[in-house]
Amino acid sequence: MVEAGPEAINRRTNRRFEIGEPVCVEEMLWCGHCRPCAEGFPNHCENLNELGFNVDGAFAEYVKVDAKYAWSLRELEDRYGDRLFLAGSLVEPTSVAYNAVIVRGGGIRPGDNVVILGGGPIGLAAVAILKHAGAAKVILSEPSETRRNLAIELGADHVIDPTKENFVEAVLDYTNGLGAKLFLEATGVPQIVWPQIEEVIWRARGINATVVIVARADAKIPLTGEVFQVRRAQIVGSQGHSGHGTFPRVISLMASGMDMTKIISKTVTMEEIPEYIKRLQTDKSLVKVTMVNE
Amino acid sequence: MVEAGPEAINRRTNRRFEIGEPVCVEEMLWCGHCRPCAEGFPNHCENLNELGFNVDGAFAEYVKVDAKYAWSLRELEDRYGDRLFLAGSLVEPTSVAYNAVIVRGGGIRPGDNVVILGGGPIGLAAVAILKHAGAAKVILSEPSETRRNLAIELGADHVIDPTKENFVEAVLDYTNGLGAKLFLEATGVPQIVWPQIEEVIWRARGINATVVIVARADAKIPLTGEVFQVRRAQIVGSQGHSGHGTFPRVISLMASGMDMTKIISKTVTMEEIPEYIKRLQTDKSLVKVTMVNE
Amino acid sequence: MVEAGPEAINRRTNRRFEIGEPVCVEEMLWCGHCRPCAEGFPNHCENLNELGFNVDGAFAEYVKVDAKYAWSLRELEDRYGDRLFLAGSLVEPTSVAYNAVIVRGGGIRPGDNVVILGGGPIGLAAVAILKHAGAAKVILSEPSETRRNLAIELGADHVIDPTKENFVEAVLDYTNGLGAKLFLEATGVPQIVWPQIEEVIWRARGINATVVIVARADAKIPLTGEVFQVRRAQIVGSQGHSGHGTFPRVISLMASGMDMTKIISKTVTMEEIPEYIKRLQTDKSLVKVTMVNE
Amino acid sequence: MVEAGPEAINRRTNRRFEIGEPVCVEEMLWCGHCRPCAEGFPNHCENLNELGFNVDGAFAEYVKVDAKYAWSLRELEDRYGDRLFLAGSLVEPTSVAYNAVIVRGGGIRPGDNVVILGGGPIGLAAVAILKHAGAAKVILSEPSETRRNLAIELGADHVIDPTKENFVEAVLDYTNGLGAKLFLEATGVPQIVWPQIEEVIWRARGINATVVIVARADAKIPLTGEVFQVRRAQIVGSQGHSGHGTFPRVISLMASGMDMTKIISKTVTMEEIPEYIKRLQTDKSLVKVTMVNE
Repeated sequence: MVEAGPEAINRRTNRRFEIGEPVCVEEMLWCGHCRPCAEGFPNHCENLNELGFNVDGAFAEYVKVDAKYAWSLRELEDRYGDRLFLAGSLVEPTSVAYNAVIVRGGGIRPGDNVVILGGGPIGLAAVAILKHAGAAKVILSEPSETRRNLAIELGADHVIDPTKENFVEAVLDYTNGLGAKLFLEATGVPQIVWPQIEEVIWRARGINATVVIVARADAKIPLTGEVFQVRRAQIVGSQGHSGHGTFPRVISLMASGMDMTKIISKTVTMEEIPEYIKRLQTDKSLVKVTMVNE
Repeated sequence: MVEAGPEAINRRTNRRFEIGEPVCVEEMLWCGHCRPCAEGFPNHCENLNELGFNVDGAFAEYVKVDAKYAWSLRELEDRYGDRLFLAGSLVEPTSVAYNAVIVRGGGIRPGDNVVILGGGPIGLAAVAILKHAGAAKVILSEPSETRRNLAIELGADHVIDPTKENFVEAVLDYTNGLGAKLFLEATGVPQIVWPQIEEVIWRARGINATVVIVARADAKIPLTGEVFQVRRAQIVGSQGHSGHGTFPRVISLMASGMDMTKIISKTVTMEEIPEYIKRLQTDKSLVKVTMVNE
Repeated sequence: MVEAGPEAINRRTNRRFEIGEPVCVEEMLWCGHCRPCAEGFPNHCENLNELGFNVDGAFAEYVKVDAKYAWSLRELEDRYGDRLFLAGSLVEPTSVAYNAVIVRGGGIRPGDNVVILGGGPIGLAAVAILKHAGAAKVILSEPSETRRNLAIELGADHVIDPTKENFVEAVLDYTNGLGAKLFLEATGVPQIVWPQIEEVIWRARGINATVVIVARADAKIPLTGEVFQVRRAQIVGSQGHSGHGTFPRVISLMASGMDMTKIISKTVTMEEIPEYIKRLQTDKSLVKVTMVNE
Repeated sequence: MVEAGPEAINRRTNRRFEIGEPVCVEEMLWCGHCRPCAEGFPNHCENLNELGFNVDGAFAEYVKVDAKYAWSLRELEDRYGDRLFLAGSLVEPTSVAYNAVIVRGGGIRPGDNVVILGGGPIGLAAVAILKHAGAAKVILSEPSETRRNLAIELGADHVIDPTKENFVEAVLDYTNGLGAKLFLEATGVPQIVWPQIEEVIWRARGINATVVIVARADAKIPLTGEVFQVRRAQIVGSQGHSGHGTFPRVISLMASGMDMTKIISKTVTMEEIPEYIKRLQTDKSLVKVTMVNE
């Protein structure tokens, strides 16, 4: 942070931001007064702006945002040192996963099993979060070997290559027939994976499974109501990363040892970022923050 | 109740059942020791027997069941008088609806709107329960005029004939564009009504809707993940009526004024019931109960 | 509403407020960006202002507040007519009760029993809300006969004069020994009523009771841990009325028939209000609203 | 297991128990049909028997119990080898802690802080469970150095000697002023520690704290209602270890690495156990199990 207005409050201290405070920011610029915001659901703001979408983004040396979207990274300094802003850049995608599996999915009770379908940044973050949440078995299904290996580094107990292995049999085998309490659909091809999720739920002995849909997809999902009736299961859709205390909890998790920087495959310089995304956004902002790219 | 074994405990008193205690019984004979039962989910018992399905049923003068499935109707006596057993016969189907909208659907907060699709016994019971739970607007969609009229008697604020009216526009109109917190799929034709439910959720300004699937159907449901993501919505499957304190709460609701006997369209004598269902069941039972047919 | 700024959005329409829209406003002026606000808990805002406490209040012909604290009363017009603003003036105290029993207390399942201790405005509103939420038995304990009679008008099934009756025996008697799922401490003398609440919980057969503390009191409460262990009970403190969708739900409840105007004992003219509270507040406000006194 | 009746079902397989299956058993012999049991709350069974209390206990070569109280330890075999039954003997006390902090306390969201007061077996198990549940900071307060060291081995981030350090300042310091989401009262001297818990809650910036009372104590607790109102906090009482899927989840947690055998300070032979507790219990039992002492 290089500049802060007089009303730019740091939630770490409930005092004005000090110059030099390292921060990360939410990407969703929620209004705070529409009906969903007033009820505590800023991810569904009726007047949403998004950094890098409809307002200028963070591929820039400086970006100006309202202080209410900024969260201090101070507690990451000791553990991450000169990787501080690399860690900070991962708070947002990790918060998307956290919102999906913890806030919307309801989390798990320690000792439950979970299955993550898709090993992109959100799926990988979900692996780390759920292993830290006490999952007995975290299983990732993902075609890319690189991503499967990352999942193992982040705590996955088992990984499945769905192009070569039978997903259903593998999950039932790894869980001694119990199945999983939580499934995360993070592939973007639900029409392909959904019937397999349902088959696990149907054949597994565990009940009460929750399927969280976090990846966006146009395809219709062929839902079998009876599976969710007989197995006492549920489905939730997840969107966003704001609110619900998610950002500060993700930062605290990272501070206490959940190292998401493992998923960084490459860092680029500002010069490598196309010129057209370098402009600063201009209005309704009180704080300038220095960003590394995500 | 005409006979009770020495270990047949009346949960109303935690003492042995007395002869003459009016009771109703659950139809699901859960084992009480399998994994789901031990976790508190008897509707998903792994060793389930069902009265009138795989064991002899209640179209009989006497039926013998374990006391743990019987619930006293004593508190209904004052209000229902000689209609006591008619009221009692409705506890089970009302409990199916209660399990769907309250236990599985999570209920509502007073002031929320709800939409019931399908006006059979379960849908009608849901109308009554949710009106008693403080729904601001209870809306029923049902082609049969008779059933729509019953819904109004049970407390529905608005009824829709989906064969003549535009369901989506009607719901949005009746709710001032807010939509509903809870939808109950009780039609058995989800492939038809589902796209309309999704359109209401998508266009309505209220978020956090829950769709409860209670009717059984073979058809695949064409689920649009994005609707449930953007509108923060969820889907749950519901099965059964046992456990979770449902039977006694339904009885207390009836005692305090929720009169379900309005949905009884006809009563028949025992002679009119086919001979083959009159046999008594014979094993694992400690209590004999007098039943009216449901 | 007599004047509205260009960014004063009406949450009923998500468009700018129109002149003439009848509204009521929250009394808690939450900041929207502190840590509790950002997590969805505006009742615990770290930068709270309060209308009529530290900022000028609403005993005035006009009051200027930010639009985000205002809620449309449009849906009350049909039912309340020229009593519209009387009804509107009761949204705030009713929301305090709603926050206590529904948001903080977790509400009830239809068919549960509840006990309200204290028949002031909050206790009386709780009676009405919980009866509308499907309580089988709503019991009020209150020394004043006037207030007990109001409680009966608002839906109480039983009232107790604790100065003449045995509270514990009465509750156990009215509930057939089951006790209550929810107790609301709204007396302000917890040191007196608490031992009686605990005795009911201890002796009743129902478990899982929740005691909500809503009245402020300096006295220490003599808590017996064992009662809450053996009877699986809990205690929550409640403060405020903002957030959580409470105001709009209370308005919808009033629109659908919960008539709180019954508790109005007297209306006064503006001239009767002391001169010193008539000044308008002056800053950080975008909307002028016409208020009746509460 | 050395003998199993024809109806003794192993919940691991939903088939009859095989001779040789290693098991542990619940100590609470719940009836399964009383009102609390039928609602899913066996820890509050109205007809409870307890192994080693009112029925003969497990300080014996063989003990006969109904199969519904037995849980397979098969999944612990690989990790624990010849320490299998030592691990198994810890499932019960760990389940008491699990019931307290996860089932009754509602668990935490990963990244929350927790404070455990008292480092006996329950407090130590809570340390391990909550660290596995993703607590950012697990803080234990306990006078005994031996127990504080065990807590560190089980995952505590900070330990406090309340006889030498200022508990309140230490907790606020370790949590950067945020305080804790969950406090476990496991000391048995609540009259001493309660005011300190309240002071942390009052001064900390985090809201929504839950205090779980698990230790039994006769002393009245001096509860300050305002603390729980202003800080949006709650109190729950906890009793027992049965139901809610607790035993199997604890076993799965142990299988996935939560090694509770670290708290075993001494093992004794059967001969060392007083003669009078060796008798076998005799009735209502279907299964014989081999036990190590707890």
